[in-house]
Amino acid sequence: MKLMFSPTSPFVRRVRAAAAELGLADRISLEPIQVAPVRENDAYAAGINPLRKVPALVLDDGRTTLIDSTVICLYLDELAGGGRLLPCSGDERWEVLTRQAVALGMTDALVLSRYETALRPQALRWPEWAHDQEQRFWTGLGWFEERMAGAGAADAVPDLAQLALACCLGYADFRFPGFDWRGRAPVAAARYARLLQRPSLASTGPS
Amino acid sequence: MKLMFSPTSPFVRRVRAAAAELGLADRISLEPIQVAPVRENDAYAAGINPLRKVPALVLDDGRTTLIDSTVICLYLDELAGGGRLLPCSGDERWEVLTRQAVALGMTDALVLSRYETALRPQALRWPEWAHDQEQRFWTGLGWFEERMAGAGAADAVPDLAQLALACCLGYADFRFPGFDWRGRAPVAAARYARLLQRPSLASTGPS
Repeated sequence: MKLMFSPTSPFVRRVRAAAAELGLADRISLEPIQVAPVRENDAYAAGINPLRKVPALVLDDGRTTLIDSTVICLYLDELAGGGRLLPCSGDERWEVLTRQAVALGMTDALVLSRYETALRPQALRWPEWAHDQEQRFWTGLGWFEERMAGAGAADAVPDLAQLALACCLGYADFRFPGFDWRGRAPVAAARYARLLQRPSLASTGPS
Repeated sequence: MKLMFSPTSPFVRRVRAAAAELGLADRISLEPIQVAPVRENDAYAAGINPLRKVPALVLDDGRTTLIDSTVICLYLDELAGGGRLLPCSGDERWEVLTRQAVALGMTDALVLSRYETALRPQALRWPEWAHDQEQRFWTGLGWFEERMAGAGAADAVPDLAQLALACCLGYADFRFPGFDWRGRAPVAAARYARLLQRPSLASTGPS
């Protein structure tokens, strides 16, 4: 399978981490793709993903493309037998999916803030917008902090929500080094430090 | 169950349409919520959704909140027996999920363009950004147009991807009345006209 890849994307990272946790990393090759707002990439839009985003996964049949990091993660989980990164049923399933949605929303918000403060021409920046997006990260982080107890078992396989949050926090460290999120969320920080020791995350950090 | 609601949100609409298709609409009450970027809503952020977005669904136990329209749609589908709006397994499952992701990405792009052209102070608008987002709508629409054949059976229950696309196109009509999307995508237009006759969509249009 071919994964449309960018080394800085937190969404690509979570797919790579999921594949590593599931033992599928060696079945996936990485295809570097340049995508960014206001830059054209007609070939990618026409051939792979009309939204011009990464990740996308081209399956081994060469004609099927899965779009969206969540869809790809669910597919990989099923390929590995199912139920490993997301419970198949019960309250726990909806809990993990909701946590994942919050972590992805936090990540989206940071990416929008980054576009505002780095990509947009300086004269057109709207500080309130960037602040609003960053606030979503902070309230999301507080929401997680309230729901976490302790640093988690060292050897438990992380679920899709934990992977999504770890990739969000890694992106915060990468693009917002001034954020003292560890000071504001010590439980999440301890959990993150533990997770970062796993090869799935240690080997996929943004660069 | 209580659905956090805005009458203009295409994401809320698709949850309402899904509930109607599943025969669950009368188990859901609507709770109007005011959310928009750069407007605070601390009570909502603290009590319901730290991302300050709609929809969110508060379950009848009063303490469980599901966040994200996709998570809510999947939950309602399971509540109705499962497999009605999304195939439970097989290639068709990944196909529908990928189509849904493209439709949601198109909707996200239109919402970002709307924020750029209506919410942001005029002096800070970046036409290239709005254009880029709108292009994602158009390339997504072209992607769907290529994959559709005919107007679809009149009585078939639409899947999650069809509902998401219909709500996206309804949002385009509502916020971008100058878009001639029907001229550029006649097959999608015929399918949409057929879908709009269903009570689930006819009764939930933006206003």
